[in-house]
Amino acid sequence: MNKNPDKKKAIVLFSGGLDSTTLLVYVLDQGYNVCPLTFLYGQKHSVEVERSKNILKKYDLLPSQITFNIDLSFFKNCSLINTLLEVPTSNKNEIPSTYVPSRNLIFLSIASGLAETINAEKIFIGVNSVDYSGYPDCRREFIDSFNKTLNAGTKQGLKNKLHVEAPFTEMSKKEIIELGVTLNVDYSMTHSCYNPSKEGSACGNCDSCRLRLTGFKQANLKDPLDYISNL
Amino acid sequence: MNKNPDKKKAIVLFSGGLDSTTLLVYVLDQGYNVCPLTFLYGQKHSVEVERSKNILKKYDLLPSQITFNIDLSFFKNCSLINTLLEVPTSNKNEIPSTYVPSRNLIFLSIASGLAETINAEKIFIGVNSVDYSGYPDCRREFIDSFNKTLNAGTKQGLKNKLHVEAPFTEMSKKEIIELGVTLNVDYSMTHSCYNPSKEGSACGNCDSCRLRLTGFKQANLKDPLDYISNL
Repeated sequence: MNKNPDKKKAIVLFSGGLDSTTLLVYVLDQGYNVCPLTFLYGQKHSVEVERSKNILKKYDLLPSQITFNIDLSFFKNCSLINTLLEVPTSNKNEIPSTYVPSRNLIFLSIASGLAETINAEKIFIGVNSVDYSGYPDCRREFIDSFNKTLNAGTKQGLKNKLHVEAPFTEMSKKEIIELGVTLNVDYSMTHSCYNPSKEGSACGNCDSCRLRLTGFKQANLKDPLDYISNL
Repeated sequence: MNKNPDKKKAIVLFSGGLDSTTLLVYVLDQGYNVCPLTFLYGQKHSVEVERSKNILKKYDLLPSQITFNIDLSFFKNCSLINTLLEVPTSNKNEIPSTYVPSRNLIFLSIASGLAETINAEKIFIGVNSVDYSGYPDCRREFIDSFNKTLNAGTKQGLKNKLHVEAPFTEMSKKEIIELGVTLNVDYSMTHSCYNPSKEGSACGNCDSCRLRLTGFKQANLKDPLDYISNL
């Protein structure tokens, strides 16, 4: 599916979660030569990164994957990273402690350096702001501004040959799942939980599990994942 | 010099080179509580990072230094990183091979995450575009755009409490050196060469050495550094 060298190259930020897996299949379907980029940044839910390899195998993309290690353990205010902080189980309509300071800014910056190195003109990211957890770096406004910064501050951007695409920004979780179903995405292979058990089961209670379960419910579909507790 | 907890915190991107050392002393002089941030990214000229510790000791800042490791060896087109590529010795008026893709974008992104973590409202970077080597990420246009991206995509930026300052953008190397002299910067402790000898002596030929030597000449000052060959 990814063997035609004439296809345009695209980097896809890919964690193995629901959004980025749907994105990966969507970008392949658009005819790009896909280079999946996965970050290991000390996240508690790195089980999704392990599972992501099975998804990549299915699409013959494992050899193209770039795994980038970056230690963000200094960001000790973040409950996704600091093992002393609990992941919250309800969204109080403010930016939650799972916010990783500047995460998408850092990830997109590194992706742009990689894109310049391998001559990829597109970087795809699966952020969405409809059902998002209050993260400022998941909004269209951030993506648009970042693109202007690429145009001002990178060699490829100056030539207008580097662009971030965030096609899911205005989509709800329900709509992303419905798109994925039309593209035959196997959601039993994806993992979304911020707070998985040691065996890798989803908690069913964190913001990310809640959004996912609600999305499936609204799409009148059953989430094929096993949960420790189900809402 | 840095002991007053009531002072506002500022992160200073500090490599131990001429520009960032002048910047460090300038920001201290402005009355900030300074947190020096040094990146180890696989650069050939990491000797400057070693020497930087002596400068920080002088200003009692060594305990405040954050050293951030990020492996950019994937950026193999860059002659500052790839040992198989030669560092160029003349500037042909184009973006040279010493350009590290998205370097300042990546560094400022990480700095903004750190700033949010330690509640620093300012990030200082010593880029300058007058004598710069053609790097797009050293220009005022890039810094201004990056600040807008911070305002759109970070928790502190949304509150207008995170800002990058690049006070040297419009200054020539001569002017930066003249400022440093008024602030008693000891330039014998700074290191600028892209291509140092094993013993750490400056080559005198790379873009960075040439700019530095020309700056001292224009300021009618003698550069206190030893060079292998002097223009």
